[in-house]
Amino acid sequence: MKVKVVTRILEANDRIAEENRKRFQEAGVYVVNLMGAPGAGKTTLLERTIGALKPHLRIGVIEGDIVGSDDAERIGAHGIPVVQINTGGACHLDANMINEVLDELPLKELDLLIIENVGNLVCPAEFRVGEDRKMMVLSVAEGHDKPLKYPLMFRESSALVLNKIDLLPYMNTDINKVRNDSLALNPQLKIFEVSCATGAGIDAWAQWLNGLIS
Amino acid sequence: MKVKVVTRILEANDRIAEENRKRFQEAGVYVVNLMGAPGAGKTTLLERTIGALKPHLRIGVIEGDIVGSDDAERIGAHGIPVVQINTGGACHLDANMINEVLDELPLKELDLLIIENVGNLVCPAEFRVGEDRKMMVLSVAEGHDKPLKYPLMFRESSALVLNKIDLLPYMNTDINKVRNDSLALNPQLKIFEVSCATGAGIDAWAQWLNGLIS
Repeated sequence: MKVKVVTRILEANDRIAEENRKRFQEAGVYVVNLMGAPGAGKTTLLERTIGALKPHLRIGVIEGDIVGSDDAERIGAHGIPVVQINTGGACHLDANMINEVLDELPLKELDLLIIENVGNLVCPAEFRVGEDRKMMVLSVAEGHDKPLKYPLMFRESSALVLNKIDLLPYMNTDINKVRNDSLALNPQLKIFEVSCATGAGIDAWAQWLNGLIS
Repeated sequence: MKVKVVTRILEANDRIAEENRKRFQEAGVYVVNLMGAPGAGKTTLLERTIGALKPHLRIGVIEGDIVGSDDAERIGAHGIPVVQINTGGACHLDANMINEVLDELPLKELDLLIIENVGNLVCPAEFRVGEDRKMMVLSVAEGHDKPLKYPLMFRESSALVLNKIDLLPYMNTDINKVRNDSLALNPQLKIFEVSCATGAGIDAWAQWLNGLIS
C-alpha cells in the first residue's frame, strides 16, 4: 500500500520532470542537479564554480532549502540570476517545485542552470527534476564509509566532487577507499578532489563542467 | 492529497511508537533516538559512549542504515547486544521498523537502548519510534549555518553533541553561532562539545546521559 503510494508519487514526478526537461532543451540551457549531505560544501562549490566559469558561461542558480534564503543571498552576491525555493520541511526538491519557479528565471539567456538540492545524501537522488545530469559533493570529513552506506546517490551521479581535501592531514579518512567503492558502484563516475576553502582542484572540475556544455 | 497521505502515515507511526514505548517502560529500559547527518560521527560517538558507560549500565543498540551492517559489526565488537535494521532505501527509521526487531533484543536485561538513526538531518526528526529522548550529533565540519537551515531536528532534540572539535583550528566554523542559533530554536537544549577522535568532552556527555537513567 505504502509502496503503491510512493510509486504513484514518483510517476507523477517523472512526468513533470519531463516537462521541465523540454523547457530546458527549448531554451538551450544545460541543467545540473547538485546534491550532497548537509555541510558537504555545495554552496561554496557553487561560488567557486561561478567564479571560474562566469567569464565563459551565463549561469543561473536555483537554491533549495527547507527554510531561509542565506544561500540565495550568497549566490546573488555574484551578480547572477538566482531563485530560492523553500520546501517548508520536505527533504528534497521535486520536479513540481522546480516547475513552479521556472518563470522567474531568464532561461533563454542562460547556458548553465545549477539546481542546489536540499542537504541530504538520500532522498534527492530519487527525484528527477528535469536535469541533464546529477552531480554530488562529498566532504572528506564525512568519512570513507559513505559510498557503501548511501549507494543510490553515487550510482545516480555523473560526477563526485570530493571536497575539503585541505582537512585530510587532520583525519583518517581513506580517500582511496572512497574512490574505489564509488567506482565499484558507478564505473562511469568522474571524481574530482577539491578544496573549496583553498581553491585547489577547482580548475579541473570547472573545465570538465564547461566541456559538457560548450 | 499528498499532505493527507503524509498525515495518515504519521498518525499510524505515532500509534506504533506508543506501543514500543509501553514495551520499553515495562522492560525498564531508557531509550535514546540518536540522529544526525551522514558522517556527523554517530557510530563513533556510540563507541565512545559504550566505552564510558559499559561499567555502569547494560547497553543495547539498534543500528539503522539503508544497506549494510558495518556499523552493527563495529558496535558488536564491544560485546553488547546489537541489531541491524536495513531500511532498503528509506531515509529514516520509523516505529514499525523498530517494533519488528524488539524480540531480537533482551530488553529486560538492558538499562539503556540507543537507536542510531539513518544519517539524515531532516526526516528522522519527524518520526517518533517510542524513544524517551531524541538526541543529535553535528560535526563542526558541517559548518555553522546548520541550525537555521535544518531547524526541526534542533527543536526536537534534548541534546546536541558538537563533534570533531579537534578540527576547529583548521576551518572557520563559528561554534558560538551554532550554540546561539541552536538555543534560540530550543532553549532547553543541552550542548556538549566533543571529539570522538581524541576523546575530549566524552566524560561530561556520558555523565549527563548516565544521570538521566540512574
